[in-house]
Amino acid sequence: MSEPGSESPILLQALRRQPTPRPPVWLMRQAGRYLPEYQAVRRAAGGFLAMARDPALAAEVTLQPVRRFGVDAAILFSDILLPLAAMGMELRFDEGHGPVLPSPLRSAADIEALAVVDPAETMPYVGEALRLTRAGLTPATALLGFCGAPFTLACYAVEGGGSSAHAALRSLMYRETALFEKLMDKLALVVGRHLQYQIASGAQAVVLFDTWAGGLARDDYLRYAAPWSRRALAPVAGLAPRIGFIRDGTHLLDDLVDLGVEGVALDWRTDLPAAIARHGGRVAIQGNMDPSALLCRPDDVLARARALVAAAAGHPGYILSLGHGVPKETDPAAVAAFVQASHEVAPGTVIAQPLRGSTPI
Amino acid sequence: MSEPGSESPILLQALRRQPTPRPPVWLMRQAGRYLPEYQAVRRAAGGFLAMARDPALAAEVTLQPVRRFGVDAAILFSDILLPLAAMGMELRFDEGHGPVLPSPLRSAADIEALAVVDPAETMPYVGEALRLTRAGLTPATALLGFCGAPFTLACYAVEGGGSSAHAALRSLMYRETALFEKLMDKLALVVGRHLQYQIASGAQAVVLFDTWAGGLARDDYLRYAAPWSRRALAPVAGLAPRIGFIRDGTHLLDDLVDLGVEGVALDWRTDLPAAIARHGGRVAIQGNMDPSALLCRPDDVLARARALVAAAAGHPGYILSLGHGVPKETDPAAVAAFVQASHEVAPGTVIAQPLRGSTPI
Repeated sequence: MSEPGSESPILLQALRRQPTPRPPVWLMRQAGRYLPEYQAVRRAAGGFLAMARDPALAAEVTLQPVRRFGVDAAILFSDILLPLAAMGMELRFDEGHGPVLPSPLRSAADIEALAVVDPAETMPYVGEALRLTRAGLTPATALLGFCGAPFTLACYAVEGGGSSAHAALRSLMYRETALFEKLMDKLALVVGRHLQYQIASGAQAVVLFDTWAGGLARDDYLRYAAPWSRRALAPVAGLAPRIGFIRDGTHLLDDLVDLGVEGVALDWRTDLPAAIARHGGRVAIQGNMDPSALLCRPDDVLARARALVAAAAGHPGYILSLGHGVPKETDPAAVAAFVQASHEVAPGTVIAQPLRGSTPI
Repeated sequence: MSEPGSESPILLQALRRQPTPRPPVWLMRQAGRYLPEYQAVRRAAGGFLAMARDPALAAEVTLQPVRRFGVDAAILFSDILLPLAAMGMELRFDEGHGPVLPSPLRSAADIEALAVVDPAETMPYVGEALRLTRAGLTPATALLGFCGAPFTLACYAVEGGGSSAHAALRSLMYRETALFEKLMDKLALVVGRHLQYQIASGAQAVVLFDTWAGGLARDDYLRYAAPWSRRALAPVAGLAPRIGFIRDGTHLLDDLVDLGVEGVALDWRTDLPAAIARHGGRVAIQGNMDPSALLCRPDDVLARARALVAAAAGHPGYILSLGHGVPKETDPAAVAAFVQASHEVAPGTVIAQPLRGSTPI
């Protein structure tokens, strides 16, 4: 029999900033369109939303990258916009066009009508998918839940889909601030409940994705986004480690750490050694290969992943990962090469290369 | 009669890092869709490309914001993709959809076929528009030319339009590097010639826009983009001041300065006082209000612009501007308020607030 301690997922050890035999590894969007077995399930299900709302199918695609690559965490296959649908917004995923919310929130009445739901009641498929996934994992593999941060959900809810300029959201935020805050209050409540619900259903850590907050200058992030992220994270403090991520958020890293999270996932443009030197004593650090570098030949991917492992230099609390999600054009062999850079580290290896921060962050 | 020295555009003084009576001000995309007088010309011309290729119309829209707001520079109304069209690529601007290059470069033969043209011969409307614009300006207003940087042009040429992931470009860059470099060699030659041509036609300073390079991690920027930007900038060294801009390029600011430019335009997410403290002794610093903050009420825009002027604290070589282009949804009154923050500075004013770098960059 193995010792009980050896069964604690190394991802959770790293999130507690305890030494691990090798850096744990997982990838954002590791379950996704680049995997032929995912495509097969999606075709059979008849679309993205049908798959995300079917617990057995969601669990199946969640488990696929664990089986294929031996990653150290499964992250529930779902979408950050499902809570908006649960709150009453119509949501579609048109093939090749990303999410569409055909009736975006543009008035006080729209925001008033948004229901502050309990995801445990309105999204029962999430809890069931987590339980089914857990049943398919060994104890060594961590199970992660996630939610979009209130600011990012507000961007989608007000814009009605992806957008780069977010002019409607910004107008609401700057010119009808009280209304914006009412929306954010509702979103923060639901996000907090959704994180609680996922942990109650078996998630051992949670990720808060703030995809769009990186478009904010720092003062605006502190004024219009951070307070609601903090509020959403509060209900699960102490229940499970919380990982914060802001895409393109190099300039907000201090503030992300200040939210009180146990770990931060770095965008690929953030200097890893400098981030470890600055924040590694306080939070676990995850990252951060450029996802597009998965389009390199597998040998080059391995070399880049090895360089990250060397740059982290055995720092306890380091998690090998990407700086954002796996691109759909990725060759699965490239993901295998990335994961190999963790698996090849021999327990007890001391990586000689010292930490060096080449870029101030 | 005024003294001859007083007629030297204060923008050029700032680019030489000489003291100016007030910070010069201009805005990226100051000639654009948010102005009703621009919309009128565009409607009459029958579209964007027709307007950009008609010297009289291009000069007219270039002059519009100078007349309306009293900005300190006119920047030629044109598009960064016109050199690709001159090199032989089909280019369309579909209403509401941005640029489309329907035959993107995907093979060695495609790249071989790209012509290394001389813009002085293939884009005569640019020189003519610059001469007409100059004739409509007082000597106090600077005339700027610009070009897209080779990496950004390569993104459009290979992707065939705007893209966020740039998977085709990245595959070429990582897997067929020699071919990528051949493309970049051609682009750097044409960009260098285009900058020369614009200066010969009256541009007193030039801006090199690298819209997409901010998506690169630092090592990749140094390997795949910076050498060709440097090559494009070399032919005009000493002829006119060169301003470099990388959208979303906070992590590349040291490298942008190292290109040898005389000025850098900061993305809105870069901390202005920290950038001045780090680089202000070497280059002029331009920026950097969040363009989306133009959606604030004009009073709030004025307050934000005043805060920038105060943060720059009378630093010689500071140019008041945005961190990217004016959004099309902008109220012209907001631009007027932004410009006011420069015009209201009394000559000789000493701004008491000291430089303070709140964020390391």
